[in-house]
Amino acid sequence: MRICVVGCGAIGSLFAAHLASLDDVEVWAYDLSQAHVAAINANGLRLSGASELLSHLRATSDAAEIPPCDFGIVATKALHTRAAIEATAHAFADGAVCSVQNGVGNEEIIAEHCERVIRGTTFPAGHIVEPGWVEQDTGGATWVGPFEPRPASIDEVRLLADTLTRAGMQAVPMSDARGAQWTKLIFNAATNPIGALTRLTHGQACDEEPLRALISRLVAEGVAVAHQLGIVLDSDPDALVDHAREVAYDHKASMLQDVLAGRPTEVDALNGGIVREGRDAGVPTPLNEAIYALIKGLESSTRRDQEAPAR
Amino acid sequence: MRICVVGCGAIGSLFAAHLASLDDVEVWAYDLSQAHVAAINANGLRLSGASELLSHLRATSDAAEIPPCDFGIVATKALHTRAAIEATAHAFADGAVCSVQNGVGNEEIIAEHCERVIRGTTFPAGHIVEPGWVEQDTGGATWVGPFEPRPASIDEVRLLADTLTRAGMQAVPMSDARGAQWTKLIFNAATNPIGALTRLTHGQACDEEPLRALISRLVAEGVAVAHQLGIVLDSDPDALVDHAREVAYDHKASMLQDVLAGRPTEVDALNGGIVREGRDAGVPTPLNEAIYALIKGLESSTRRDQEAPAR
Repeated sequence: MRICVVGCGAIGSLFAAHLASLDDVEVWAYDLSQAHVAAINANGLRLSGASELLSHLRATSDAAEIPPCDFGIVATKALHTRAAIEATAHAFADGAVCSVQNGVGNEEIIAEHCERVIRGTTFPAGHIVEPGWVEQDTGGATWVGPFEPRPASIDEVRLLADTLTRAGMQAVPMSDARGAQWTKLIFNAATNPIGALTRLTHGQACDEEPLRALISRLVAEGVAVAHQLGIVLDSDPDALVDHAREVAYDHKASMLQDVLAGRPTEVDALNGGIVREGRDAGVPTPLNEAIYALIKGLESSTRRDQEAPAR
Repeated sequence: MRICVVGCGAIGSLFAAHLASLDDVEVWAYDLSQAHVAAINANGLRLSGASELLSHLRATSDAAEIPPCDFGIVATKALHTRAAIEATAHAFADGAVCSVQNGVGNEEIIAEHCERVIRGTTFPAGHIVEPGWVEQDTGGATWVGPFEPRPASIDEVRLLADTLTRAGMQAVPMSDARGAQWTKLIFNAATNPIGALTRLTHGQACDEEPLRALISRLVAEGVAVAHQLGIVLDSDPDALVDHAREVAYDHKASMLQDVLAGRPTEVDALNGGIVREGRDAGVPTPLNEAIYALIKGLESSTRRDQEAPAR
């Protein structure tokens, strides 16, 4: 079996390194960081932290080098999905492609270029220590299911889940993976932008009563949209907020890290996704719209600062 | 006539310097900045910019020095109203006290300590150049009227307005000054926090379509509360937003300046005021509540940074 991980950052590296530990799987990694690619090809891909692994695989920044694959696993930041799948789709002409990205809307973009698509949601997190080396911060499962408009077969979904589980990443095949996806989406959309706008850690934000109430109201809007779409959530996202306060009090939201580093955020796939799906389903989402507007404004001022650094 | 300006920052200095130019008015200024007080007592209070004045008056940081006054003009930041009026109320036992501060709630606090209160709204803006010297950035009128629960007489309101107008500050006496106050309140509450959260200037924020829409929705909540309270606005705050884009594109909201300087903001008197008045009047204000929570969170992270600067 041949699998290509598209976008081999922190999350993609977790998938690539685990899969490459299997003798019967040939793993490719496509990534635009030439330093990361060179380090992987020279010394292998190292995982530390929650997983300890040194795996050997083929990495490239040249999509033309990727041979035909049985599976693609797309793990870029949501805003790079289109460019990444446009470049690599040729390799999946006879394969199935799974998104393990944040938010909603990624599978739709992949389906514009690929025949058989898998909806995925993954909980492990990590960060790049240096080129070729990723620290895994937390473990957790991955849920995969057919993407309904252009589905992979349930046999393909099961084969991918089995392969991931054999490689040491717990993966759960489902006939409908929307519940897992929306549970994480709603949690992320209600907490990530709060961190980015206030610069508080997750736990600090939860300790401010008006902010905690706002998080619950954002969750409620997302739950209402999911309900209208007929999606049965895996768990109550508002309870996840309290749970995360216990286990990750000092966590700085990835969206806050993006803002502090001057990068664009994933808000289009998070609050933007809830707003779009809500509009289509006739469910009002005024608070998610407000948060979306504020984050887009913050991205705009960051961009202006970068364009005029001497201002 | 004797008048004491309570809080002699940028706005208070505009009032104090203009009033002290009149021969028949003795002006006192109460302020906690000892450098500002010392400079005023040594060299007078200088205005430049939209007004050019050098006025001589008595300034003090010791409230016990203030003699009985006919009028008080409270010009502190909203969050210092209570401490300032508690310290100075003795001087106004036989006088009337007028707030010219931002937001709502200041007159209520003053009325806890003073018998006759005047509701005021002022449009001029300025900034302190150095102790004893204030640059007036913009002109504009001041509207004054009786504070309904503990009103000054309409004769006192007229006398204060006439005195201010004679001193070169256009002042308009009204039997109901709530319209002017709420027009400015709604404008400020819809624009100031947007700047603080996104770090965009007023014009830049207006140019981001989702943000401009959010501003309109915040305005609409405030207008609904005012309507329910029977307040007739002076003008459409949403039209003021567009007007300000034309004349003050590069203006950084005072709330953004507060955040960048690590100071607490006036959000309690702005969005907090709209939320409280809306709750009492039975008008929902979910977007103002969200904005209030975010600014309180931003204040909290600023405070934490100051308490742990090495973090």
